[in-house]
Amino acid sequence: MDEFDIERPADPELDNPVLIEGLPGVGHVGKLAAEHLLEEFDAELVRRIYSEHFPPQVTVEDGRTQLACAEVYAISAAERDCLVLTGDHQAADGPGHYRLTEAFLDVAAAFDVSRIFALGGVPTGELVETPDVIGAATTDDLIEELEAVDVEFRENEPAGGIVGVSGLLLGLGERRGYEAACLMGETSGYLVDPKSARVVLEALEETVPLDIGYDSLEERADEMEEVVKQIQQMEQNATAAPSEEDLRYIG
Amino acid sequence: MDEFDIERPADPELDNPVLIEGLPGVGHVGKLAAEHLLEEFDAELVRRIYSEHFPPQVTVEDGRTQLACAEVYAISAAERDCLVLTGDHQAADGPGHYRLTEAFLDVAAAFDVSRIFALGGVPTGELVETPDVIGAATTDDLIEELEAVDVEFRENEPAGGIVGVSGLLLGLGERRGYEAACLMGETSGYLVDPKSARVVLEALEETVPLDIGYDSLEERADEMEEVVKQIQQMEQNATAAPSEEDLRYIG
Amino acid sequence: MDEFDIERPADPELDNPVLIEGLPGVGHVGKLAAEHLLEEFDAELVRRIYSEHFPPQVTVEDGRTQLACAEVYAISAAERDCLVLTGDHQAADGPGHYRLTEAFLDVAAAFDVSRIFALGGVPTGELVETPDVIGAATTDDLIEELEAVDVEFRENEPAGGIVGVSGLLLGLGERRGYEAACLMGETSGYLVDPKSARVVLEALEETVPLDIGYDSLEERADEMEEVVKQIQQMEQNATAAPSEEDLRYIG
Amino acid sequence: MDEFDIERPADPELDNPVLIEGLPGVGHVGKLAAEHLLEEFDAELVRRIYSEHFPPQVTVEDGRTQLACAEVYAISAAERDCLVLTGDHQAADGPGHYRLTEAFLDVAAAFDVSRIFALGGVPTGELVETPDVIGAATTDDLIEELEAVDVEFRENEPAGGIVGVSGLLLGLGERRGYEAACLMGETSGYLVDPKSARVVLEALEETVPLDIGYDSLEERADEMEEVVKQIQQMEQNATAAPSEEDLRYIG
Repeated sequence: MDEFDIERPADPELDNPVLIEGLPGVGHVGKLAAEHLLEEFDAELVRRIYSEHFPPQVTVEDGRTQLACAEVYAISAAERDCLVLTGDHQAADGPGHYRLTEAFLDVAAAFDVSRIFALGGVPTGELVETPDVIGAATTDDLIEELEAVDVEFRENEPAGGIVGVSGLLLGLGERRGYEAACLMGETSGYLVDPKSARVVLEALEETVPLDIGYDSLEERADEMEEVVKQIQQMEQNATAAPSEEDLRYIG
Repeated sequence: MDEFDIERPADPELDNPVLIEGLPGVGHVGKLAAEHLLEEFDAELVRRIYSEHFPPQVTVEDGRTQLACAEVYAISAAERDCLVLTGDHQAADGPGHYRLTEAFLDVAAAFDVSRIFALGGVPTGELVETPDVIGAATTDDLIEELEAVDVEFRENEPAGGIVGVSGLLLGLGERRGYEAACLMGETSGYLVDPKSARVVLEALEETVPLDIGYDSLEERADEMEEVVKQIQQMEQNATAAPSEEDLRYIG
Repeated sequence: MDEFDIERPADPELDNPVLIEGLPGVGHVGKLAAEHLLEEFDAELVRRIYSEHFPPQVTVEDGRTQLACAEVYAISAAERDCLVLTGDHQAADGPGHYRLTEAFLDVAAAFDVSRIFALGGVPTGELVETPDVIGAATTDDLIEELEAVDVEFRENEPAGGIVGVSGLLLGLGERRGYEAACLMGETSGYLVDPKSARVVLEALEETVPLDIGYDSLEERADEMEEVVKQIQQMEQNATAAPSEEDLRYIG
Repeated sequence: MDEFDIERPADPELDNPVLIEGLPGVGHVGKLAAEHLLEEFDAELVRRIYSEHFPPQVTVEDGRTQLACAEVYAISAAERDCLVLTGDHQAADGPGHYRLTEAFLDVAAAFDVSRIFALGGVPTGELVETPDVIGAATTDDLIEELEAVDVEFRENEPAGGIVGVSGLLLGLGERRGYEAACLMGETSGYLVDPKSARVVLEALEETVPLDIGYDSLEERADEMEEVVKQIQQMEQNATAAPSEEDLRYIG
């Protein structure tokens, strides 16, 4: 294997597609959102990207191994063709993040992608009843367009910038001439958060546009609500209860 | 030295050999198993692989130094020719893991290897009386074949996937067209575990097939049993005994 | 993007310019000083340097993203032309530091820079009422010249040497034949320190020479004085007050 | 600067020289020993090796900066010509250790070095009254020769092997056909240890051979004895004395 090894299982003709990225990150919001799209639409695997910049490991499912990779699926929706980029890993080294993102942008170029949406979460440190969607974008036009669908653009948020593939899809994407935006759902940062994934998808579907069903995501959100209630119950019962801050990822 | 430096002390003709890997890891299960094979059979060193991706160090034995390396031995058993890959180190950097594994697969290719077995341990967090062997493989055929010799394939185990050379021998091996499996003995994770190495070898010998004697490994297992008993004795005697979790590698 | 990607928005003719560097570091002294120069003088962006050796991230300001980069501005002051190098990041890997600094020195060479001043802070571990400026330089002539404007050169300070781009601008700059000095303001190390940035700039302006106004920096220093007073008040009021050492960057 | 940048201030004709290495490590034993040789003999700087694999920093002495480097000096002693390799840094990355050591071996080759001695310390965890010298070597002949001057070769020492440039000078040196040995003085690991450096040099001088004076090293050892006595006094006086293990490097 070279630095990159790219499989091309299919090469469908797409009409002016949008690239939507959801890799692991805060609250798994981006990955949940991307996986929901793959469930809701007919999705065809078009690229599998292997790289020595991924962690040196295989995942195992029902005994079968899969080398660390990212996958790109084509979604042919009535409203707009999309490519969905997802996977189980970010890059494991700094320059690797840059090079992987360039490899992803090469795929985008091969399919004549016009716009890029990176999906993720922004940590608030506390449970959020009705999460907002925070945005960041490469052009003022796109900011305006997203503000019209209630995405919030705040003066200094996210304070630490956007790290990893999501950030670089905007940073490197802009240098290649792509309009790109990152949609970040507010999330505690302690729990896998399907509710946050849903509000991100709702902002996305109005912009792309897409017509997304939410039944299965709703179910996952309800399950997490149950988990949260149980935790809160445990907190009230315990004398020395763990604080909200003590909770690590559950879900 | 370049990125890799490979010595070729011998080039025996092998008949359809199987590559068996046992490098350091959880409970030293894989390395114990590989070393046991080298003891039990006539083993001939065929390759020594040096690389800047190994840690920058030499080991010292009786005053003589040996640069960090991996070694491949040929075993000419009555039942089936084998190559055994072992050593004292995994790679020290992420891309190095990928590149080392490719170098190992080049050796496999030079000897027309048909199948690859990676041996290791899977941590359970507690002492295991009768360890199971957990499997992962690149093909359903191989999974079936291993299930027939009581290797267990579980829905989400090992949960964190398989990391390091063992994982990549499957992940990168599959991309080169090899059938490959990883056999992982259950082990506490706190102690060097010859008993776990034995059950892994028992699963291996039925599959390869091989006819392995276990006297020396049995002895090491008995010694470890003694160590465990002493630790348990100490625990009962002590007022503030160290919990099982406090024990680090002993053996 | 290759290892480096350099934008050249302008190429003004400069007369024997001095390169002044202020990147993030102890007490943000260097960065504060560099930013103050950009505020006080007419500054023209001449180079923007992107690199895979920067952290993989974008910063976000009012919703617009900016890929991690360093920027070089030209200042045409009456007394002396200057280039000011600043940004939000140091390199993220060791060899990257060397390569980035060489890229910066290439920019210096393109503008026929004669001298280099790296600005920064040196941590004292306690609040400093009247910070000194500690110096380090590549030639005895420059040491003498800086001693004449009250920069202090001490036998073994800074004890750990000078790390990062500031250090390498001297170390690699000297190898290219540049006279270079580092001016380090004493600073607690716990707070962003505009007062320390001011004394560094005062030493710089006598040497370059430049004529710098300090009103805006004075204001920021006054704000920080307020913060410090509040902290000290809190300490006196609290029974179990946080020690000075417990304070992390505030500002 | 490329990956390496090597200055050649002098190219004296040396007669069958021995390369002696002493870089920073346990108890600073190797570096103390190397520096003592440079003090005791007429030493001429012959090579200065810069590399992006060193930490990105300059050291500062009396205000003058020096880019991180390693230095090789020629010593023309009556008994035997020597090259002494020393400096303030080991490599900062794994492959860098391998590449730096190869660069050092290139210097050795340019001067027709025949033998290599790496000097260092081996940590015992407690204060040692009369430290032994532990050896490791690439040939049985050299082991014999060193045993004759009371260097000890023990079955499994040092247990963790020899890490860094010292280890690789043996490991990579052997692959280039050099006879090489590492001489390691026992040392607590908590204090800079001139006494340990002395016993290492005493073993070295009988083997090379050399005729080394020890007055200045004796003085430093006496100073350290004073420090140790003061620490022991403090321990006896204190109610809750810091244990020997609590002491960090002093000296």
